[in-house]
Amino acid sequence: MTVHAAPRAHHLQPHPPTLILASKSPARTKLLEEAGIPHRVLVSDVDEEAVAAGHPDATPAETALLLARAKAEAVAALPAATGALVLGCDSVFELDGQALGKPYTAEVARERLAAMSGRAGVLHTGHWLIDVRGGHEPGPAAGTHDAGAAPGRGQLASAGVEFSEMQEAEIGAYVATGEPLHCAGSFTIDGLGGAFLNRVDGDPHAVVGLSVSTLRALLATAGVRLTDWWAAAVDR
Amino acid sequence: MTVHAAPRAHHLQPHPPTLILASKSPARTKLLEEAGIPHRVLVSDVDEEAVAAGHPDATPAETALLLARAKAEAVAALPAATGALVLGCDSVFELDGQALGKPYTAEVARERLAAMSGRAGVLHTGHWLIDVRGGHEPGPAAGTHDAGAAPGRGQLASAGVEFSEMQEAEIGAYVATGEPLHCAGSFTIDGLGGAFLNRVDGDPHAVVGLSVSTLRALLATAGVRLTDWWAAAVDR
Repeated sequence: MTVHAAPRAHHLQPHPPTLILASKSPARTKLLEEAGIPHRVLVSDVDEEAVAAGHPDATPAETALLLARAKAEAVAALPAATGALVLGCDSVFELDGQALGKPYTAEVARERLAAMSGRAGVLHTGHWLIDVRGGHEPGPAAGTHDAGAAPGRGQLASAGVEFSEMQEAEIGAYVATGEPLHCAGSFTIDGLGGAFLNRVDGDPHAVVGLSVSTLRALLATAGVRLTDWWAAAVDR
Repeated sequence: MTVHAAPRAHHLQPHPPTLILASKSPARTKLLEEAGIPHRVLVSDVDEEAVAAGHPDATPAETALLLARAKAEAVAALPAATGALVLGCDSVFELDGQALGKPYTAEVARERLAAMSGRAGVLHTGHWLIDVRGGHEPGPAAGTHDAGAAPGRGQLASAGVEFSEMQEAEIGAYVATGEPLHCAGSFTIDGLGGAFLNRVDGDPHAVVGLSVSTLRALLATAGVRLTDWWAAAVDR
C-alpha cells in the first residue's frame, strides 16, 4: 500500500525513483539526459543469439521486445538493482521483412546502405520496464514465469524511415567515418546519417533507440510521473 | 569556370567551403555539429515583423521561407560573409491554420500546450542558401531583385507533429522548466518536450529547426557535396 500512497506525496515534493538503463548505448544515455531524466547505466551479459534462437518465428518487432525484456530482466536480477526501476531497450531495423543488425565491417555497411538508398525501412525499438522498488521476488528468475506473471511491462515503438538516394561517393564517405559500422541498420539519425534521412513516420526517438513518450507511458503504469524528475531538478 | 572545376579537385582532396549559419539558435548549431558540418555563426538584425507585414497573405509555410531568406540575405550582405556559403533558417509552428511563435510567458505557454494536448500541428522550417564564394554582386541588396535574380535558393521542410495527451500537472511541470517559453510552438523535441511527442510525419530535424537532408540538397545545387566535410575531417 505504501507504494500506491507514495506518488501523492511526490506531487508536492517530487522525489522520483532511481532509474537504471540496462543498455550501454551512448545514444540512449544522451537521449535520457536531453529529456531531463537522471539515470545510471548498469548492464548484464545477455546471450542475444540464444534469446533469438529460443523464438525462431519471432518477427523483427517481436525480437526487439524480447531482447529488451531479456536485458531488463538480467539487470533487475542483480542486487544493485534493488529499489530502482530498470529499463531495457533493444532496436532492430527491418528492411524487406528482414532484420538487419550492426554491419561491423565496411564492406557489409556499404552493401546495406546501397540497398537502403532511396527506400524505406522500419526501426523497431522494444522497451521493457521492471519495478524493483519492492525488492526481488523470491524463487526463480523472472524469465521462467509467463508474460502475465513477470514483474515488468513492455511496449514497442516502431517508426518508418525513408532514406534519400545516396551516391556511391556519399556512401563511401559515410562508411569511412566509421559511424554506420556499429549501428543497427547501418545508420543513425542523430549523427552524420541525418544527412540521408528524408522522413520518419513515427517517434524519431524510437529510431535513435529509446522513445521517451513510450517510457513516459510505461512509467505511468508503474505510478511514476516522468515530469517529477524535471520538478525535482527545478527545486534543487 | 573555376567555380565549376573546383568540386572535381575536392573529390580527391576535400576542401569544402566555409559555411555560415545565419541564426543564433543553439539547437541549429548543435544539429550541424552532430551532423559533422563545421560552420560559424553570424547574425544580422532582421525586422521579422516588417518582413511578415510585407506579405500579409503569406501562409505559415511561406512565412518560414521568407524569414529564412531575409536572415540569409542580411548576413550575405556583410563583408565578413565574402567567400562563404550562407544558410538562413526559420521555423514556424502551425496549429489549426494559425502560425504560433514563441510564447515568451508562462501563461501563454500553458494555454498553447493545453490546446496542443492530444492533437497534431505542423512545423515548417524554411532554408535559404546564398553562395558568396564569388564575392558580392555590385548594386542594391538582393532583396530588391525578384526571386529568380536573387543569388540564393530556398527549400521548405515541413513535418507533422502529434502530441500525447498531457495532464495539467505535466504541462505545469514542463512550463516550470522554462524550456517551452522560447521555442516556436512552445515545445522542442530534442529536449524535455520529447516526452510528449507521439509521432512525427516528415524530417524530425525540420522540427528541431534545420533539416540536414534539405541542406544536403541545397548544397548539391551549389556544386558542394555535404560529405566532403566528413572526408576532410577523416583526412585530418
